Amino acid sequence: MTAKREPVQLPLPGLDRARAEWRQAYESQVPGEDARSNRSGIPIKPIYGPDDWDGTAYMDGLGYPGQAPFTRGIHPSMHRGRPWSQRQLIGLATPEDYNTRMRGLLDAGVTALSLIPCNSVYRGFDVDEVDIELLGTCGTTVNTVEDMEICLDQIPLDQVSVALNDPSPFTLLALMMAVAKRRGTPWKSLTGTSNQSDYLSHFIANHMFFRLALPGAKRVLMDHIMFMNREAPRWNPISVVGQHMQQGGATPAEAMGLTLSTAIQYANDLVERGLSPDDFLHRFSFFFDISISFFEEIAKFRAGRRVWTSIARDRFGAKDPKTWRFRFHAQTSGVDLTRQQPLNNIARTAVQAIAGIFGGLQSMHTDAWDEVLSTPSDEAARIAVATQNILREEAHLDDVIDPLGGSYYVERLTDQMEEEIRAVIDKIDAAGGMYAAAEAGVVQSMLGDSAMAFQDRVDSGEQTIVGVNKYVVAEDASHRPTLERPPEDVMNAQIARLGRFKAERSSDAVSKASDALVRAANHAEENVFGAIVDAADAGVTHGEICTILRRELGFGQPLVVA
Amino acid sequence: MTAKREPVQLPLPGLDRARAEWRQAYESQVPGEDARSNRSGIPIKPIYGPDDWDGTAYMDGLGYPGQAPFTRGIHPSMHRGRPWSQRQLIGLATPEDYNTRMRGLLDAGVTALSLIPCNSVYRGFDVDEVDIELLGTCGTTVNTVEDMEICLDQIPLDQVSVALNDPSPFTLLALMMAVAKRRGTPWKSLTGTSNQSDYLSHFIANHMFFRLALPGAKRVLMDHIMFMNREAPRWNPISVVGQHMQQGGATPAEAMGLTLSTAIQYANDLVERGLSPDDFLHRFSFFFDISISFFEEIAKFRAGRRVWTSIARDRFGAKDPKTWRFRFHAQTSGVDLTRQQPLNNIARTAVQAIAGIFGGLQSMHTDAWDEVLSTPSDEAARIAVATQNILREEAHLDDVIDPLGGSYYVERLTDQMEEEIRAVIDKIDAAGGMYAAAEAGVVQSMLGDSAMAFQDRVDSGEQTIVGVNKYVVAEDASHRPTLERPPEDVMNAQIARLGRFKAERSSDAVSKASDALVRAANHAEENVFGAIVDAADAGVTHGEICTILRRELGFGQPLVVA
Repeated sequence: MTAKREPVQLPLPGLDRARAEWRQAYESQVPGEDARSNRSGIPIKPIYGPDDWDGTAYMDGLGYPGQAPFTRGIHPSMHRGRPWSQRQLIGLATPEDYNTRMRGLLDAGVTALSLIPCNSVYRGFDVDEVDIELLGTCGTTVNTVEDMEICLDQIPLDQVSVALNDPSPFTLLALMMAVAKRRGTPWKSLTGTSNQSDYLSHFIANHMFFRLALPGAKRVLMDHIMFMNREAPRWNPISVVGQHMQQGGATPAEAMGLTLSTAIQYANDLVERGLSPDDFLHRFSFFFDISISFFEEIAKFRAGRRVWTSIARDRFGAKDPKTWRFRFHAQTSGVDLTRQQPLNNIARTAVQAIAGIFGGLQSMHTDAWDEVLSTPSDEAARIAVATQNILREEAHLDDVIDPLGGSYYVERLTDQMEEEIRAVIDKIDAAGGMYAAAEAGVVQSMLGDSAMAFQDRVDSGEQTIVGVNKYVVAEDASHRPTLERPPEDVMNAQIARLGRFKAERSSDAVSKASDALVRAANHAEENVFGAIVDAADAGVTHGEICTILRRELGFGQPLVVA
Repeated sequence: MTAKREPVQLPLPGLDRARAEWRQAYESQVPGEDARSNRSGIPIKPIYGPDDWDGTAYMDGLGYPGQAPFTRGIHPSMHRGRPWSQRQLIGLATPEDYNTRMRGLLDAGVTALSLIPCNSVYRGFDVDEVDIELLGTCGTTVNTVEDMEICLDQIPLDQVSVALNDPSPFTLLALMMAVAKRRGTPWKSLTGTSNQSDYLSHFIANHMFFRLALPGAKRVLMDHIMFMNREAPRWNPISVVGQHMQQGGATPAEAMGLTLSTAIQYANDLVERGLSPDDFLHRFSFFFDISISFFEEIAKFRAGRRVWTSIARDRFGAKDPKTWRFRFHAQTSGVDLTRQQPLNNIARTAVQAIAGIFGGLQSMHTDAWDEVLSTPSDEAARIAVATQNILREEAHLDDVIDPLGGSYYVERLTDQMEEEIRAVIDKIDAAGGMYAAAEAGVVQSMLGDSAMAFQDRVDSGEQTIVGVNKYVVAEDASHRPTLERPPEDVMNAQIARLGRFKAERSSDAVSKASDALVRAANHAEENVFGAIVDAADAGVTHGEICTILRRELGFGQPLVVA
């Protein structure tokens, strides 16, 4: 069917009558039907047609991929020319375990790596500062430049993109840069992301990651961005984490709106530091949750690209079209997975992953089915990767860019999600921006209300969770792995290794670098992240760096809203 | 966005230029890209836009659901008002096992039942006619009216729709009707489908089911339809099985075209019997495979509805719009599942099921992940059902009717699939219809060629099969069930039960009914299926009925094309 050249009358002749006839037939078939709405509260009609989207707004609202407003994708070739990265988040007990698993995944088709540290690391401690039972159950214990060397053994840092789950003050990155320096790998060749740099999301919704008081966290982030922009310009120093918002209870529209408001905050802070938006906006990236609310997630991502374009171009006046491109990683949502009948999670993850692909993501982590129970087993992690391979190479979901583009439902929903997202941004603007809104608890209340509303739907049975509030069956536990704790001697060896490392390092270098870090923390004109990298290189440990900065910049106390 | 009232210029102003700019950018990003095409051979472009589908053909090509040409669905409310039936095909060793599993599935949310008999039954034999090792490994051994009474114990036949995997001469249905008669359940209240009634598909592509020579098979089918139309008018006597064509190698477009050609053949045969299309076409139903070729399957089903409307309305001149509605059951394709890394099949099945839902099916079977290895285990069967529940009630894929309608890609692909399907029908018409084309081997050659072409793509690596020709990993066998054979004493008990049944039945009634069956088979004016029902009720067994008919009507010898 080729485009006809004659003017077309809209609405189409006969459409009103056909719709009226359909409506009458529908209502006689489903009399008194309950209204339906998605998680973002948008009413969902039974059908969408040319009166919801007639295509006349195509040039303004969609365009072609790689063209503003990028609704159909940020790259001209999208997944057909640039397959999404399969970035499985991996952390395992010891640096050696991590290195083995990571190299196995590279062989299995993963194209980008990530590092999840042990909870003790997240909380800002070394292995010798916490109870041994807390060590190594859900991530790698990496405290020193020596640990990091083991993690990255035989991984070519200039060829593989590495995502570090590395909250402020970015000690993992500092350790990695120290490793690169020792290997002679130029920092300018490093690619990857500081994907836990979004301290506001931690303050609001992920308290485990929150280490420094708000003003200090802000200071370190800004210095980190300035430093990386100069020293490692291919690195993405900022990833704004919508995942925390959504997992903390935000609806998909709220999660997108709050994430964009956070990005606006960081951009404003950098402009205050004297940077031009064209200098840094192209290095912003985003990290989202993909819930099982299929079409809502697709529309969330499509609308997000459109809104970001207008933020970068119109609000910040960035001239370089690269800054208008909304690049994001997404992870299938662990919140939707269930401990009951856990193999069902493979199907859930597949659905979520498809929504992410149709949403035009740049990189994806698919959850393993047993992640709700423990650190993923080898087999479950492989199935998660295989799911991505199946979607791309068997189902061929990468054949066509934005394959749902033009769908009456998807286009209408994208428009509606855009409205909801903009309303959230307006609300945060009115509260003085994300920093002020977070400090005042505005965002926390929003998340709490939405979390409660969703739970009400589950409790009332309006929202099914298979195996939890419906279709419950008596189960045998054969497929339920137990949380595997690393053997105590393995963790004792880690503690001993840290002790040896501390004994063998140059105490002079350590005390000089520590003093320099203290000084930098107290002098706004110095770059505190530069001092962190120097400290890591000098042998100061992760825990020691965190301790110094907590003392100098204040301990992070998240606001708890009653 | 509401429809604007002003005439719209097509193509949209600026579209040509934007597309040209995109194309240039695309080609510089993906220089010299290999062409891609789907399984039906349709080239797949990287993007589809308003020049592929501008919506002006909406009224002719789509309309609203429940309106001709039914592209968007056959019912006004589709899945939102009429959830698809979750019809899991179940067969287990003994009638008792079957009954237990079936009642469990009813509790788990299944809304329609099916019965898969043992291979020995498919081949036309009773349990005492074959080697014991062949019994009960992949279906239920049901030979007598007593066996069927056990299978259906406590199943309310007037409330549950039952699909019988029951090839000609339809002994299972005859046994079930005998059970209904004994219970006093009126035949007019029975609902369900003879879903292996399509003898042409057996002749062509499923030789295990083929029992009678072509002319005899035709005769029995016609009598079966005439009988059920009169005695049990809510029963669907004919299900045309595209699944066999596709699993036998046909591309999705070929499978749809051949299935529609088969339906045309049966309809012509019934018209020759003196029926009017308005008397029977509304009872035709269809059974398809859903491969993992996601968009192709969606387009196959949408196009199939459009073509069927024109066949029923225009070709056969049926006046009742009910006859124009293309009702189908679909099963996720077992052909796409792998024995390697078998838990990956859960993800594959989820993808296939989504395609089926978006394609607007009326009823679905989702394969269990271990079906490639053996009869599904309890847990795997439950996961398969849970997948459907998750898609409907967690992902809310039933919210919107034809949610992809209007998508540039999906609409264009639907048009192209329609062209391919019509070309196949034209080819079969030119060969003198499906009966003649099957007899001459025309269809078998088509399937063979397509099967070979697909295998070439797999062998060359152009088509990935994860775990088979790519991403192969060394596996432990922990998740590999072995084929469970029912204990020999269980099958010996079945054989003994049959012996006792034969000893206790009235030999006079049996010989009278057998004689009547012989007579009916040799007299075209009698209804041979009516005689089969009488024989089943009189205690003649499945194997005995098949033996008589093979003798009187000729043994089925499929044509094998070199």
